[in-house]
Amino acid sequence: MNAPGTPRYVLVHPNDNVAIIVNEGGLAAGTEFASGLVLVDDIPEAHKVALSDIAEGDPVVRYGVVIGLAARAIPRGGWVTENDLIAPAAPSLHELPLATETPSLLPPLEGHTFQGYRNADGTVGTRNILGISITVQCVAATVDYAVRRIKAELLPKYPHVDDVIAITHNYGCGIAMNAPGAEIPVRTLRNLSLNPNLGGAPMLASLGCEKMQPAQMLPVSTLPILSEAPYVVRLQDEQHMGFEDMIAALMELAERRLVVLNERRRVPCPASELIVGMQCGGSDAFSGVTANPAVGFASDLLVRAGATVMFSEVTEVRDAVHLLTARSASERVAQDLIREMRWYDEYLARGDADRSANPSPGNKKGGLANIVEKAMGSVAKAGTSPLTAVTGPGERVLAKGLVFAATPASDFICGTLQLAAGMNMHVFTTGRGTPYGLAMAPVIKIATRTSLARRWHDLIDVDAGRIATGDATIEEIGWEIFHMILKVASGEHETWADHWGLHNEYALFNPGPVT
Amino acid sequence: MNAPGTPRYVLVHPNDNVAIIVNEGGLAAGTEFASGLVLVDDIPEAHKVALSDIAEGDPVVRYGVVIGLAARAIPRGGWVTENDLIAPAAPSLHELPLATETPSLLPPLEGHTFQGYRNADGTVGTRNILGISITVQCVAATVDYAVRRIKAELLPKYPHVDDVIAITHNYGCGIAMNAPGAEIPVRTLRNLSLNPNLGGAPMLASLGCEKMQPAQMLPVSTLPILSEAPYVVRLQDEQHMGFEDMIAALMELAERRLVVLNERRRVPCPASELIVGMQCGGSDAFSGVTANPAVGFASDLLVRAGATVMFSEVTEVRDAVHLLTARSASERVAQDLIREMRWYDEYLARGDADRSANPSPGNKKGGLANIVEKAMGSVAKAGTSPLTAVTGPGERVLAKGLVFAATPASDFICGTLQLAAGMNMHVFTTGRGTPYGLAMAPVIKIATRTSLARRWHDLIDVDAGRIATGDATIEEIGWEIFHMILKVASGEHETWADHWGLHNEYALFNPGPVT
Repeated sequence: MNAPGTPRYVLVHPNDNVAIIVNEGGLAAGTEFASGLVLVDDIPEAHKVALSDIAEGDPVVRYGVVIGLAARAIPRGGWVTENDLIAPAAPSLHELPLATETPSLLPPLEGHTFQGYRNADGTVGTRNILGISITVQCVAATVDYAVRRIKAELLPKYPHVDDVIAITHNYGCGIAMNAPGAEIPVRTLRNLSLNPNLGGAPMLASLGCEKMQPAQMLPVSTLPILSEAPYVVRLQDEQHMGFEDMIAALMELAERRLVVLNERRRVPCPASELIVGMQCGGSDAFSGVTANPAVGFASDLLVRAGATVMFSEVTEVRDAVHLLTARSASERVAQDLIREMRWYDEYLARGDADRSANPSPGNKKGGLANIVEKAMGSVAKAGTSPLTAVTGPGERVLAKGLVFAATPASDFICGTLQLAAGMNMHVFTTGRGTPYGLAMAPVIKIATRTSLARRWHDLIDVDAGRIATGDATIEEIGWEIFHMILKVASGEHETWADHWGLHNEYALFNPGPVT
Repeated sequence: MNAPGTPRYVLVHPNDNVAIIVNEGGLAAGTEFASGLVLVDDIPEAHKVALSDIAEGDPVVRYGVVIGLAARAIPRGGWVTENDLIAPAAPSLHELPLATETPSLLPPLEGHTFQGYRNADGTVGTRNILGISITVQCVAATVDYAVRRIKAELLPKYPHVDDVIAITHNYGCGIAMNAPGAEIPVRTLRNLSLNPNLGGAPMLASLGCEKMQPAQMLPVSTLPILSEAPYVVRLQDEQHMGFEDMIAALMELAERRLVVLNERRRVPCPASELIVGMQCGGSDAFSGVTANPAVGFASDLLVRAGATVMFSEVTEVRDAVHLLTARSASERVAQDLIREMRWYDEYLARGDADRSANPSPGNKKGGLANIVEKAMGSVAKAGTSPLTAVTGPGERVLAKGLVFAATPASDFICGTLQLAAGMNMHVFTTGRGTPYGLAMAPVIKIATRTSLARRWHDLIDVDAGRIATGDATIEEIGWEIFHMILKVASGEHETWADHWGLHNEYALFNPGPVT
């Protein structure tokens, strides 16, 4: 361990001409590093220092890639700010390498298990939750009321059930269901109700007159279990004589599901049954140095164990697309990735925006100059495995290995779409800090900086900042994350988000217009 | 009152060649009416019967306007279904009559008052609520947690405060804030936090790194009260040492606001201080015959009393735009209306949709053949007064009289935008039935049919179906609604939605892309 006062910077790639200041509170002009570098500006924590003189127009290199051209001459030891960089254009989607550098498979990792709930559809839950879906926002407040009653009056009788949740949203009516893109929210809602942590059998509350009818959301033909038992409460049906009667119907159906769920027990399952969604939010310049590489190492461990690892956030991988198409397991997978990038480019263009709309003021304050630098840090979560599959927003992920599940980068839209993809465990890295949480799957939160982990001691589950201070290696934190995933999946370790019951609302991705 | 079994239909306009079957459960072929008309088909309740032979291609007329051309020859006494109508094109926006038939003002209605809360900004609340706004969804679960604690631990000490609510949403980050249309959700959130029922002073929770910063949502320059006292809790600020500390900060600021709100008392206010939002949802063919005309009569009473009456739902007035531009108080108002219609036409076209995407399966089951018929029923809510102002989505309404506040027709987006416009009372009509409710303003729910009002006895506040059965006149129900508005506004009558605590989530209108 270094003395706290020792000036430190982190260099990611040997070709880089900038590095990141590690010391909490930043460093003053005149500070000299062990390497002999002397700062010529005051530089805040997580911000970039030039390691050599950079002429105006010369490339600024981080992660071994050009994150921009210098807008002015920057002296060695100078602060490289967002205003000093001219961002390059996004890589063209027309001439990308297709599966030209597919990595070899890492050696299998065997013998790691967790205690999970096996579902009839072959999936495994890490939780045993009764989820009540809705076709339309109109019934949300009614279902919320019913859930409060169910939790107070019924749930205590079924101690093997972890929770009862309403999967509410603002879709279902007042929307153009035939417009291009409308299939995304519809399949998202269908797949959310089939998340492994909900026991593999949906319960649905409908109004009756809404645009999205239960049969569109949950086609019986594709779900044999639905044809065996009624699973929908439709409030407008004539047998419901008012509100109290609707609540009674919801509670009765809920209790029938609780009886079934309560019979379930955790059983040992191989780690290959995990479907882990990786995400970052409130990123800073450390994200790509500490937390995300550690998560990437854990991703590789999971892939070696046969699990599914999802990464997402289209606008945050767009500038790294050439690296990922080269890394794809096949030309087909690379083409699928290009298809999703192109779709999103066009979606943003329709709204007169582009990927540069992504970085937030906090990202910039955290030292991220632009979307290129942010993207290079973001994709570190994906580790080093071959990319084995690409799915569209809200689609169920069936493949094992490393999967790109295309979603917007918006934290809760991404989380909602990863849940729809089948995620049963969630890992979330943050530099600036966010009290993120989901009701449907446990969320392990990882800080990029020790100062955040220390300050938010009752929100952050893993401190990856120890990598920057030299107190731990990427591999050590990666294994720590891997083991924590198995423990949390087994119900043996409680995340801070679950401790406080922090459950953000679901946020749908609806590219179509509302009416 | 008619004998229950007497066959009845409702004719709206003397020129109509179709009428609406009134009898619950519908009527069978062979049924003869007092007029001599004999049904040649079985026709469900609320559906249309042809009053004369209609040749293929001939206009089908309801409300005195052409709602479509007959797709086949329809005999006298035949059922006119949605498939029998070819909808006309929407009225062109280029050659509309501008203020050509401005109605004279109705005589003033004086002496009607309610008990309200006067705010420093000149508005009047019908409730005394502490609202906690958020800049970004990331902090929603934390604020929800704080609100649960505030309601349990603080609110009981401040008995003159009605409620504490979190104004949560899924905007604030992961969005293209510079894209066209982004001003709509931003001003919506600003104006929501200034709703009269929240005492005219906002409290705001922010994360810190989000795209929408507190100063964008609540510019201090426009709100003198904000410069006098700190009103924001920013979770990432360095003084917050973890989650419990954040909750303590939120509770402390909330208590400071509760102390102030608790000093307020209801005082007599003229009815002119009401800002009433009118809306319909789950409409059927009776909506335009019973509930909406009665609401229209109440609208006229409110306008005569000097109040503000808002109607909204662009896609449901689009086909009646020529009637409304003619009725506008000035050419300027008519032009403002055309501007909003054009904006929405273009918005829908960008998403490859048009106004025909509006009607739902339930509307059609309820006898509404298409958007033209639905629109003619919908605008009945606007009564007969001149249109005095038009505002864009999420803008604050400052005018008195009848105002068109442009919003999508989606129930909760419309409700949210009407709250942002300053609504302190809400009236909602429904034919198919919806358990709609809002936390920020009381909602009076009006059924179009007695059968619904009877069945949903503990959700529906007013039965306008009595108009169709001949048991009440439009004027009588209109006065009943007017008096109920005053009583509910005064806190002297509890709506069913408030009785059960049915509070649907806010739904923003974000025409821009997410990132």
